[in-house]
Amino acid sequence: MRRDKMHLLAYVKTGPSANHAGGWRHPAARLDDIFAPARYERLAQVLESARFDGCFYADTQGIPDIHGGSFDTYLRYGGQISYLDPLMVLPLMARATTHLGLGATLSTTFHNPYHLARVLGSLDHLSGGRACWNVVTSSTEFEAANYGMYGLPAKHDRYDRADAVLEACCALWDGWEPDALVMDKASGLFADPAKVRYANYERGGVRTRGPLTVPRCPQGRPVLMQAGSSSRGREFAARWAEAIFCKANGVANAVAFYRDIKDRMAAYGRAPEECRVLPSMTVVLGETMSVARERAEYLESLAEPELTRAWNSAMLGADMKKARTEAEVEAAKGNQGHGGIEDETRQMMRDHGLTFEQATSRTRGVVVGTPQSVADHMQEIFEAGGCDGFVIWPTVEPAMFEEFGRMVVPELQRRGLFRTEYAGRTLRENLRG
Amino acid sequence: MRRDKMHLLAYVKTGPSANHAGGWRHPAARLDDIFAPARYERLAQVLESARFDGCFYADTQGIPDIHGGSFDTYLRYGGQISYLDPLMVLPLMARATTHLGLGATLSTTFHNPYHLARVLGSLDHLSGGRACWNVVTSSTEFEAANYGMYGLPAKHDRYDRADAVLEACCALWDGWEPDALVMDKASGLFADPAKVRYANYERGGVRTRGPLTVPRCPQGRPVLMQAGSSSRGREFAARWAEAIFCKANGVANAVAFYRDIKDRMAAYGRAPEECRVLPSMTVVLGETMSVARERAEYLESLAEPELTRAWNSAMLGADMKKARTEAEVEAAKGNQGHGGIEDETRQMMRDHGLTFEQATSRTRGVVVGTPQSVADHMQEIFEAGGCDGFVIWPTVEPAMFEEFGRMVVPELQRRGLFRTEYAGRTLRENLRG
Repeated sequence: MRRDKMHLLAYVKTGPSANHAGGWRHPAARLDDIFAPARYERLAQVLESARFDGCFYADTQGIPDIHGGSFDTYLRYGGQISYLDPLMVLPLMARATTHLGLGATLSTTFHNPYHLARVLGSLDHLSGGRACWNVVTSSTEFEAANYGMYGLPAKHDRYDRADAVLEACCALWDGWEPDALVMDKASGLFADPAKVRYANYERGGVRTRGPLTVPRCPQGRPVLMQAGSSSRGREFAARWAEAIFCKANGVANAVAFYRDIKDRMAAYGRAPEECRVLPSMTVVLGETMSVARERAEYLESLAEPELTRAWNSAMLGADMKKARTEAEVEAAKGNQGHGGIEDETRQMMRDHGLTFEQATSRTRGVVVGTPQSVADHMQEIFEAGGCDGFVIWPTVEPAMFEEFGRMVVPELQRRGLFRTEYAGRTLRENLRG
Repeated sequence: MRRDKMHLLAYVKTGPSANHAGGWRHPAARLDDIFAPARYERLAQVLESARFDGCFYADTQGIPDIHGGSFDTYLRYGGQISYLDPLMVLPLMARATTHLGLGATLSTTFHNPYHLARVLGSLDHLSGGRACWNVVTSSTEFEAANYGMYGLPAKHDRYDRADAVLEACCALWDGWEPDALVMDKASGLFADPAKVRYANYERGGVRTRGPLTVPRCPQGRPVLMQAGSSSRGREFAARWAEAIFCKANGVANAVAFYRDIKDRMAAYGRAPEECRVLPSMTVVLGETMSVARERAEYLESLAEPELTRAWNSAMLGADMKKARTEAEVEAAKGNQGHGGIEDETRQMMRDHGLTFEQATSRTRGVVVGTPQSVADHMQEIFEAGGCDGFVIWPTVEPAMFEEFGRMVVPELQRRGLFRTEYAGRTLRENLRG
């Protein structure tokens, strides 16, 4: 028995649904409010009432058009793109809640550290210490072209830049001492200049001078999360991440990944609890297994398989209309491709005896069951030492989070596996606790 | 008599005050909530209840350290820097209001068009068509260094890039037809791909491919505002701006500037009402002129003259501790310096027989008077054809906007010079109406 508790983060997107290809067509999916503040406030409140540690917005800076060389499939069938910039809805969610962590996916490849440190420091202030940065290096050529680049840099170079961008951001965040702001009307002393420093950071192409305009934020710096699965990605995560978003791929693989990360962290002098390993999953729930199965079948009937394949094209960085094998993908992807999705695809082929084409047409990561069986599944991986909790992605948003909060969370709480109240005030306190 | 009405925008900053060097020390200035959402929501509600067309956040991407080669003066005496990223508070203000326009200052020199178009399109959606972009090219070396540049580009080059960035943004905003989003659950058609286009923009160093992830926003594109005063700046404004933030410098100069802008606009085929010329001013009000004068003296006693000089160092791009004449500033400023502030400084010297050093130590643009005399002042410039309204900057925030709304606005309304209710739904409708 583990004595610590699970941690839960919600994976969300701005728009009608986060990840399931057919979710937006479900009768419970609301579509008329996707540009309205109230939608995102409500989502935050649902997650907070279920005592999630936090949520984070996934983001891709473009509409994937790798599949068939066109964005047709993505738009026609309701692909999950960021219909609003996630940064613009997070302040609203901060205002509507008091404890929920609030994460933005922001790219170290496309953004400047001064901008990144300023927006994230601001979000941390406005939320009273609940900001989180899902650090990505971005993995597609279409995003690079949107940002004016003539090509996506190689993965290793992207990670080198990411290290430098994070060092630069930390130098900016650390530039204000916690007590630099005095604001004494009588003496006229606003801030103590001796307690504010330049960053003067320069490494590779990454350069910033500082100081930041934003004083020290409540958490000092936002919680950092990351999803690297390659060796370079794991090394990056071991150094920086306080939460890792990954794929479980069965208990044995989960345990191996978990141990590898915690070992790598030790080499950086970090304690195991300083980073939470959180595999992703989604659920389709039913009062009985048979209800759950029928609901899952219904949901699956709403998904267009071609959209699932287009999603794979975007994630693997190769056109699934042309590349029918792993080798063909490898030859076509160039600097593109998501290591975690590659691993998961191989695992699906092995576990279920699928061809590559079959594996890239299937909805992934759906756990179908009763509240008890879903809790059993989560408990098994957790107690085997394969994770510290989970990233939950929705099928239908926010209905599925509401169901999860009403049905699975109480079951986890009954088993002593999950908090009943927030212990901390900041996201970091809740993730560490 | 003019038959149209005045337009009012509020100039605001994230932090304790927007522009007056001593404002934060005033007894009515609240300091404990500068990082709290409620402060910005309340400000927006105050401005909306006074029927302002909108507000916009000024922004400088750094802490000015030109004065004496140090940021000491700025921090010690409470210089107005962006203590939070303005983009992060605007969604909160959108949520707390229904008609107020909401502007962000964003730099075409430091930001990529894909980022700019996405955040501004998102704000326009979340506010139901009330987003505004105050386009700046940035004019200081310290900001350039924060963004990793080895030097600020020359003004002409910055404006060339600004033209390209705006063209690129427009190509991105225009990429989605208004009816591209279908979201029909029954047929499974989410969006019509034939109604979404690539931007494929490339000019000079500015390049983006598109499409934007954000569908067509309510206003099509945000309202564009600008503050150029040089010939190149005016040409840029004549082409793009829907509101110009400028300095009045007396009725005769205001009329000359106003006519020049409207003439230049005609050359672009634009009607005069497509851009509102709005000189800036602030007020210190009193029930009687003697109360107003005493209040103004008290407020001025709170301001540290060295901070006013440091502000001039930042605006003129030269260290006022070393450069004591216009010629010395000219020799020192390099690519830095704000044309509008240079013009205003010269005008102050001419009008009041001041030395350069005296002119750069004085608080600017404060109109001291009763509601009637302030309305007289505004009416004179407006009816002389020197403006279409005003940008009001606060001394003490939000107290001064509350006073302005209670005392000056009703006087303007009684005279038929200002709206009593919003006529339009979007910012553009209200600015044009």
